[in-house]
Amino acid sequence: MAHTTRDKAKLTARVKRLRGQVEAIERGLENEVGCAEILQLVASVRGAINGLMGELIEAHIREHVIDPAREPDQAKAEGTRELIEVLRAYLK
Amino acid sequence: MAHTTRDKAKLTARVKRLRGQVEAIERGLENEVGCAEILQLVASVRGAINGLMGELIEAHIREHVIDPAREPDQAKAEGTRELIEVLRAYLK
Amino acid sequence: MAHTTRDKAKLTARVKRLRGQVEAIERGLENEVGCAEILQLVASVRGAINGLMGELIEAHIREHVIDPAREPDQAKAEGTRELIEVLRAYLK
Amino acid sequence: MAHTTRDKAKLTARVKRLRGQVEAIERGLENEVGCAEILQLVASVRGAINGLMGELIEAHIREHVIDPAREPDQAKAEGTRELIEVLRAYLK
Repeated sequence: MAHTTRDKAKLTARVKRLRGQVEAIERGLENEVGCAEILQLVASVRGAINGLMGELIEAHIREHVIDPAREPDQAKAEGTRELIEVLRAYLK
Repeated sequence: MAHTTRDKAKLTARVKRLRGQVEAIERGLENEVGCAEILQLVASVRGAINGLMGELIEAHIREHVIDPAREPDQAKAEGTRELIEVLRAYLK
Repeated sequence: MAHTTRDKAKLTARVKRLRGQVEAIERGLENEVGCAEILQLVASVRGAINGLMGELIEAHIREHVIDPAREPDQAKAEGTRELIEVLRAYLK
Repeated sequence: MAHTTRDKAKLTARVKRLRGQVEAIERGLENEVGCAEILQLVASVRGAINGLMGELIEAHIREHVIDPAREPDQAKAEGTRELIEVLRAYLK
């Protein structure tokens, strides 16, 4: 089962929150709250999408490439751990 | 008038498209389309939000800091053009 | 006087440290330290250059666009503070 | 043999060019070329390091995790191709 299916409820809740943040930008524009606040709202959506992207990439690696916790080949397991660590720092 | 108010219709349409992209992620999760497609959908939202952020920052500079086209002080106008150019490359 | 001239000694020392980090990658390749360590060295140079870029952009704004601390027009001073704040979060 | 060893000559040449770009920043500061040019030099180093980082991560995946071209398990090979594709877009 794909992790996006297994974690469906958790991911859906998270994407709904993201939608709520985008809707807050729409309301801010509608209510003419001013540029600085719109910038802050957009920046927060950007942070949320980057966080979601990082988690999905890591879950994809574990599910569809190699799960270091279950991989018998220790060299590959180690190489995967190193990859996840570098990507976490990079996608932060 | 703040640019987010002057450009309200254009910005609102853009944010509505962004919401549509986020809703596409929700539908994708609901229909269990699988991880690769979800990753692509999230990546496209990320691209859209980065594009929106870059445009809003540039508009903020012109509206609330210095508009190089109307700034009498040529050194400040030039400094602002340089800033906009560096940020465009950076926020691409 | 341009800030890159005024802060010449400090910036030069920082760029020399950056060069030292790049030279560490060269030595790592020469000594065949292995991929994971090379990735970590490259990631640290990336972090250093992003930090330097963020500081230079902020200094450019204060020197060549508007210095909020000395700007008589309070709306422009406020707009510049907002810009600096958004860019700090963005370029982090 | 690690890819950073196998591709040692090519990678070393690339890192030397990167060092040359960093040294160009040092000369720029020394010759007081001014802020805009320093910003451009730093931005070019940033572009170069991001490019190098993207290539090293992809090479790490193929060498130390899964090489889709040689992987017998087609699901894992496909999952790895998807990962490489997403990271290319992301690390661009």
